[in-house]
Amino acid sequence: MALRAEKVTVVGSGLIGQAWAVVFARAGFAVALYDAVDGVAAKAVGSVRDRLRELAGAGLIETDELDRIEARVTAEASLEAALAETAYVQENGPENLEVKGRLTAEIDHLAPLGVPVGSSTSGIPASLYSAEVAGRRRCLVVHPINPPHLIPAVEIVPAPWTDPAVTDRATEIMQQAGQSTIRLEREIEGFVVNRLQGALLEEAFRLLAAGIAAPRDIDNAVSDGLGLRWALMGPFETIHLNAPEGVAQYVERYGPMYHALFGQGQDPEAWPRAVAAGLEDALCEKHPKEAIAAAQDGRDRRLMALLKHRRESDGA
Amino acid sequence: MALRAEKVTVVGSGLIGQAWAVVFARAGFAVALYDAVDGVAAKAVGSVRDRLRELAGAGLIETDELDRIEARVTAEASLEAALAETAYVQENGPENLEVKGRLTAEIDHLAPLGVPVGSSTSGIPASLYSAEVAGRRRCLVVHPINPPHLIPAVEIVPAPWTDPAVTDRATEIMQQAGQSTIRLEREIEGFVVNRLQGALLEEAFRLLAAGIAAPRDIDNAVSDGLGLRWALMGPFETIHLNAPEGVAQYVERYGPMYHALFGQGQDPEAWPRAVAAGLEDALCEKHPKEAIAAAQDGRDRRLMALLKHRRESDGA
Repeated sequence: MALRAEKVTVVGSGLIGQAWAVVFARAGFAVALYDAVDGVAAKAVGSVRDRLRELAGAGLIETDELDRIEARVTAEASLEAALAETAYVQENGPENLEVKGRLTAEIDHLAPLGVPVGSSTSGIPASLYSAEVAGRRRCLVVHPINPPHLIPAVEIVPAPWTDPAVTDRATEIMQQAGQSTIRLEREIEGFVVNRLQGALLEEAFRLLAAGIAAPRDIDNAVSDGLGLRWALMGPFETIHLNAPEGVAQYVERYGPMYHALFGQGQDPEAWPRAVAAGLEDALCEKHPKEAIAAAQDGRDRRLMALLKHRRESDGA
Repeated sequence: MALRAEKVTVVGSGLIGQAWAVVFARAGFAVALYDAVDGVAAKAVGSVRDRLRELAGAGLIETDELDRIEARVTAEASLEAALAETAYVQENGPENLEVKGRLTAEIDHLAPLGVPVGSSTSGIPASLYSAEVAGRRRCLVVHPINPPHLIPAVEIVPAPWTDPAVTDRATEIMQQAGQSTIRLEREIEGFVVNRLQGALLEEAFRLLAAGIAAPRDIDNAVSDGLGLRWALMGPFETIHLNAPEGVAQYVERYGPMYHALFGQGQDPEAWPRAVAAGLEDALCEKHPKEAIAAAQDGRDRRLMALLKHRRESDGA
């Protein structure tokens, strides 16, 4: 990976802050770790090294790069020093509106002008905690899926007042850091990842409560079924490749079944309308209709490789 | 794999029937392929061989076993010959109630007494298509996730009149065939897999229609986020390992957030009640509370191995 001159700052050095330090350091950023509690950041540097060594042990970092990567992570005793000349701030404070508001104001006061201040919060939108912050236009949520050094997806959620250039810059930094970005156009409770997970969990609990299947069997439906496809491609790409003519045909064939299950009180034309309004175009950009058969072959080859991997891992 | 003496019969030799033949043959069963249309079964044997060679190419079958496995698959010109001395029947007829009812009656008339007759149907419950069949107590749905030779999950769905011994026997045969069984206590529209997939899809379409995120970003949330965990473990095991004290603590911490998102009009105590009514016990059988930290480490190691695998596959 290319070395980056930029310094980034990780505020809050618990498990999530440590994982962020791993993400940034392995991508070439210099990382300043800070924690409001004395000594915590210094101790966290050791934990970051442990995580980096685990990654090297798993073959995800070259062993001979390890020293150089570790050297990029330093603890700072003051927030001011941690923020000096930084290019990006990732805040991992407690999930408490008042505390997060105060901490964000303090960061905003000390950080170089215009630098994005992202928060790892899963539950408090930036419109709440940054409302009273002078530089609120540079505040936004940058929500990791834990732990971020192992799960690349990250949600980028601007407040109504976040400067679009800040959102773009945060997205760019996350991509440079090797993460997979999910950009939300606006705030919504639960963001995208937890809403998708919650919808599936809600149905799983419903099936369990109705006595339809045992917990292990419901888990099998995902870990030996849906999850194998979803580790390779998302839900839209999955259905696009599950009909010879793509997503429009899939929705025509199976939409009514899903509507009967979940669409109570909703417009039966919602899915077809979304398909026509841009979903089909977006999916056909990656897999044009005439290339779907070839893409199915490719998916099956990737599934076979994944099965082989799982078999070898289970045996290991 | 151990060689099995049993013969199984695959009725209907399209793509799904061919994939079933692959599943059974590689597990050691002798497979008789039949199709109502002349010549289709004979041609399907060639396609089954192609699939088997692909599996060998991917390292999922030993190349020196290939000839022996291929030799287990034969086409039969008559349904009677296909069903002679069979131990199990997998029916893959058209998704049409009347046609499936007639075909099932015909199979029931010719197959050895007591042998389970499973249908691959995704949409027609056995209580509908087998109602008028004399031997309806041996009829049930055995629904694959396509293609079954690459996705091990299979749903076993008895009709109200299915003999429990038949359901047990079908489950046993599927496990001998190397599939991962999901046993439904009773019929429900969409079964389990499509209900879980549908719940997530419905939310994905809602987010898209509301303009929250672009299709590719919603796909990323799964393929680079939730799907990585779900390729290793199901949704219940995932949340059990996402709190230091396990599922009860997870539901205490995050249940209210999910309820706010999806529980409208529903009992806020539904999740805690399910946890107390057996879910926690079931999960603690696999991961007792005192072993959760170790299981989290194990999950992270498996995630690292999966990331390494994906990186190598993408480079390939």
